[in-house]
Formats: sequence, structure tokens, C-alpha cells
Amino acid sequence: MHQHTTSPPSLSLRIDLAMNARIGPGKIQLLEAIAACGSISAAGRAIDMSYKRAWDLVDEINHICGCKAVARRIGGKNGGGTVLTPFGTSLVARYRKIECIAARAVRQDLLELQSDIGPVRKPRAGKSTSF
Amino acid sequence: MHQHTTSPPSLSLRIDLAMNARIGPGKIQLLEAIAACGSISAAGRAIDMSYKRAWDLVDEINHICGCKAVARRIGGKNGGGTVLTPFGTSLVARYRKIECIAARAVRQDLLELQSDIGPVRKPRAGKSTSF
Repeated sequence: MHQHTTSPPSLSLRIDLAMNARIGPGKIQLLEAIAACGSISAAGRAIDMSYKRAWDLVDEINHICGCKAVARRIGGKNGGGTVLTPFGTSLVARYRKIECIAARAVRQDLLELQSDIGPVRKPRAGKSTSF
Repeated sequence: MHQHTTSPPSLSLRIDLAMNARIGPGKIQLLEAIAACGSISAAGRAIDMSYKRAWDLVDEINHICGCKAVARRIGGKNGGGTVLTPFGTSLVARYRKIECIAARAVRQDLLELQSDIGPVRKPRAGKSTSF
């Protein structure tokens, strides 16, 4: 019966660039998976995301930033693939830097929050929200 | 044609207390609305959230924290209502403090991100994700 857990709390950051234009951990994880896997479809599979959703998210990132984060690479051993552009690479690095700075800044307060709450119970089945 | 915006980026924080046990801006906004409105149903209406969803979120907060954030207040002029418990009040205050510390810590990097990206375009209709 592992209903309680005492691992330390962590932060997930969403950056609200403008009304409804957001960069969060999901989009960044997808870009990192594209860099690692060399294709959008393989990246989707690697992070358990549908092909359509992965393409839609890439399209959304490119659109809101007004600059492509992902580009086709023509040719090569496997007939091309997908890579991050310098802008995409920089976007990922900057997000991870911001995440790291924020996590360090609030570390003590997260520990105090954990101490306030005590052992955390997992949500009941089907009742988890990231809201 | 207001397709671009140049307002500074902001952060939304989600605190991951444990696997699938999360406190984010939506739950905190709901608790603040309950404190302001004195009932869960009025709070739901105030932040455009269904009665069922508001109750489900309150139930989820109480469950994962193992401590009630919200309590019934019996009697009074309008026949009772709902208030935040001291734990609920402290949870909201601590979240807002963490949000404030994180925002201050990453302010310069958010401005640099904005400078990298340039004017942000709003997502196409129906294409916004907070992912």
C-alpha cells in the first residue's frame, strides 16, 4: 500500500509569451525528443505522443514564435529527417535555464511547503489534474 | 489586425508534489475565488468553472494534501457557506510567494527570451495549448 510519498516537490514552468501563446514542458520535451530522434514521428513515439499531436505542436511553436524551431534535413544515410534549427536549440536551452534558475530560487520554499503538507497522497484513479 | 503583441512574458508555475499530485494556478485561483465569494458554486461561476469541476478540484486538493483546504461555515446571515481553512490560506500564500520569487529570479532571462523571439503571434483559432 504505497499511498503516500515523501519525494521533494518540483516545479513545472509554463512561459506565457502572450495571450494563449505558451511554451511549457510538453513542447520543450517534444523539441528535445526531435533533437534526439531525428524525426517528428520517432520523437512522438519516444514520448508517447500521437503523430498528429506532435506535428500540431511543432506547427504551433513555429507559428507563435514567428520563426521555425524545427527544419527538414535533406539527404544523409537515412534519407533525411528533422533537426532543431539554431532558434529551436536556443529556445530549449533558454527554457531549461529558466527552469533551473526558478527551481534553485524556490527550493527552500518548496521544502517548507512539503513540510506544511506532510506526506502527499496520490490522486484517486482518474482524478489527477495538472490544473 | 493585432496579430502581434510585445507584452513581457510571464510564468505559470505548477508544483509537482508527487507523481500526479499537482498544485497549479487553476487550483490556487479556485481557492482564492472561494475565499472571496464564500461558496464553491459562486467561486466556480466567478472564474467560469462548472460546479462539478470546482467540487472535483476541491476534493482533489483535500485528498492529495491529506488536509482540508476548504471547510463549511455553519450559520451566519446567509445560512453558512464555504471558507478556506488555515491550511488552505497558507497553501495559497505559499504558492503565490513561490510564484513571486520564481518570477523575480527569471525576469532577465524572460526578457532575453522575448528578445530572441521578437513579436509573438497568437496561436491560430482553436490551436492554443498550454502544454
